[in-house]
Amino acid sequence: MRIDDVKIVDPFFSIENGWIEFGESITSYGKSTKASNSSFILMPGFVDTHVHGGAGYDFMDEKIDFRELEKHFFSTGVTSVLATTLTAPVERINNAIDNVRKRMKENPLTPLKGVHLEGPFISKKHVGAQNPDFILKGNILNLKKIVDGNEDIVKIITIALEESDDEVIDYIQSKGMTISIGHSDATFEQFIRFYKAGVKHMTHFCNAMTPLHHREIGLVGAGLKFDDVDLELISDGIHLDEEMISLILKFHPHDRIIAITDAMRAAGLKDGEYDLGGLKVKVKDNSARLKDGSLAGSVLKYNEGLRRLHDLGLNLNEVATVSSFGPSAILKSESPIGRIMPGYDADFVIMDDNFSVLKVFKKGKIVFSREGG
Amino acid sequence: MRIDDVKIVDPFFSIENGWIEFGESITSYGKSTKASNSSFILMPGFVDTHVHGGAGYDFMDEKIDFRELEKHFFSTGVTSVLATTLTAPVERINNAIDNVRKRMKENPLTPLKGVHLEGPFISKKHVGAQNPDFILKGNILNLKKIVDGNEDIVKIITIALEESDDEVIDYIQSKGMTISIGHSDATFEQFIRFYKAGVKHMTHFCNAMTPLHHREIGLVGAGLKFDDVDLELISDGIHLDEEMISLILKFHPHDRIIAITDAMRAAGLKDGEYDLGGLKVKVKDNSARLKDGSLAGSVLKYNEGLRRLHDLGLNLNEVATVSSFGPSAILKSESPIGRIMPGYDADFVIMDDNFSVLKVFKKGKIVFSREGG
Repeated sequence: MRIDDVKIVDPFFSIENGWIEFGESITSYGKSTKASNSSFILMPGFVDTHVHGGAGYDFMDEKIDFRELEKHFFSTGVTSVLATTLTAPVERINNAIDNVRKRMKENPLTPLKGVHLEGPFISKKHVGAQNPDFILKGNILNLKKIVDGNEDIVKIITIALEESDDEVIDYIQSKGMTISIGHSDATFEQFIRFYKAGVKHMTHFCNAMTPLHHREIGLVGAGLKFDDVDLELISDGIHLDEEMISLILKFHPHDRIIAITDAMRAAGLKDGEYDLGGLKVKVKDNSARLKDGSLAGSVLKYNEGLRRLHDLGLNLNEVATVSSFGPSAILKSESPIGRIMPGYDADFVIMDDNFSVLKVFKKGKIVFSREGG
Repeated sequence: MRIDDVKIVDPFFSIENGWIEFGESITSYGKSTKASNSSFILMPGFVDTHVHGGAGYDFMDEKIDFRELEKHFFSTGVTSVLATTLTAPVERINNAIDNVRKRMKENPLTPLKGVHLEGPFISKKHVGAQNPDFILKGNILNLKKIVDGNEDIVKIITIALEESDDEVIDYIQSKGMTISIGHSDATFEQFIRFYKAGVKHMTHFCNAMTPLHHREIGLVGAGLKFDDVDLELISDGIHLDEEMISLILKFHPHDRIIAITDAMRAAGLKDGEYDLGGLKVKVKDNSARLKDGSLAGSVLKYNEGLRRLHDLGLNLNEVATVSSFGPSAILKSESPIGRIMPGYDADFVIMDDNFSVLKVFKKGKIVFSREGG
């Protein structure tokens, strides 16, 4: 296939009035000499490494209409997803992992690329909207119950390392999985120990972690201090306000910022009451909250988060960096994704300059096309 | 006079094996061709724009042995001082200002360069170790009581602008004084308004101000966001821990960092109980605290604060920047200070590479010489 007359945006270059040829993967691209008035943008498909669901479904549900859920992801420009689990009984988490594996086998065009385990190895002090009844201690015995046999599919484990045994770091790393510190009450000093052991990823930076105080800079201070730590960023303007997002964009290398949605089942649906891991969540005005007002995941659409980051100063190449290049590195996809390069999967999104998604391609196939588009 | 065989350190250059000639002001300097083994450093004298006293005296005291107090400043390398007042009855503040003016007239070699009014126009919510009974509303009427007739000498006013009338900003600026926001509960949004009106100075950054939260970044966030805001920094390792200092040094332009001591009367004395504006303060292990544990100023010696900043990564030129070039700009001295340049006051400190002060010159005269030195 061939697409003409688009602005090609890769993390490291742009081509005005470009063309691209591809089958399942990209074969070639270039710049047309014909004049063009198109302002359509072609970027690598977005990669959401932290998302719980959408379109009414949660990855923890026993039954999921994956077609509907995938349609929702594609409609927001997302072509790769880590299905993110919650703190729940071990068998429910394993069931969720099995569902994802099954779907990955049955649909070659699924955006599902693996699992992000968020919980159950978290801190009661920063439980967020997770169910504290099912928190487990982070030790090898408990980890084995979920990780063993799932090495093919679990890519990230969010864990409160200060509550865990020291040896879990080595254990998780030996499995090739990324450790992300999160839902954690770790002090800055504790983090230094984990950092030295290779922990360089933080789950929804600033949310559910030790804040910055001027006599204990906490995990927030640690994330700002160390340029080589990947920071997940929810850019809904609610989990962090826009000024905080601006500070992070100012101070942290953009290739170490990972745009995520942390979206729950209500993403893409109307306001109302929804379930999150057995807890009731009220969705209103783009926020999802528990009864006590705590944030309970987002209802953010990935492309809308990127529009906000663009408004806050990221240029389009930087937008591609935080939405594809950065998260792809963590995902360790079998075929390369996250760039516009020959040999890379033909996963891309075509959008207008207002970040409205027009068409989405997965491995060269159209998987979303806006009505009338 | 002439000094040979020193490393000259200015904010913008260094000369190994340098020499300098001076009368009251610097006349010339250069590099010697003779070999040298000296590791002594000559820098511009330090400028402390926020200090309450030392050697047993507080600028609010009715009677002060200025000779003793000045000796203390010189012994720490400080050659210029803004005498800093506290929240107290108006007549006591005016009395303190009069004492300073009198001393400035009687001793041509005094380090006193004017007054920093810290209070009484502060917020009850961030009163710190000031006496809340004497807080005044920041309005023109109240400001006139202290400022009028003291335009020659008041250089900085620390003020909680969110508690003040809007017109005070114009009023203070029209007097040529620097407004420093501090002891303040201002939100980030409120600060933006003050910033647009020209307020670009923060009193003891991080202490006694709205902290950084990821949904309201407060004054701490504002100070980090805006590169053109001068941030007073207490570098005793207690008011801010060393990691917070490191973050500030990483994120803020060094020529906008103002090293201060915020020292109280016990600086240079032994541990014990002291008075601060009528409040009892216990001094122990380099910290001064009220009964309830609140910090009550520091007992920091200026040169020791600089040693810490050097250990945390500032090179010597940057140390000169935060200790002389930056604060000098605020001080608006009649004769130029804060650099090693012909025509600048011959105010300098000679120290070893461990920041131990050996000799101090004020307007070309030796005002401190270490015993045995």
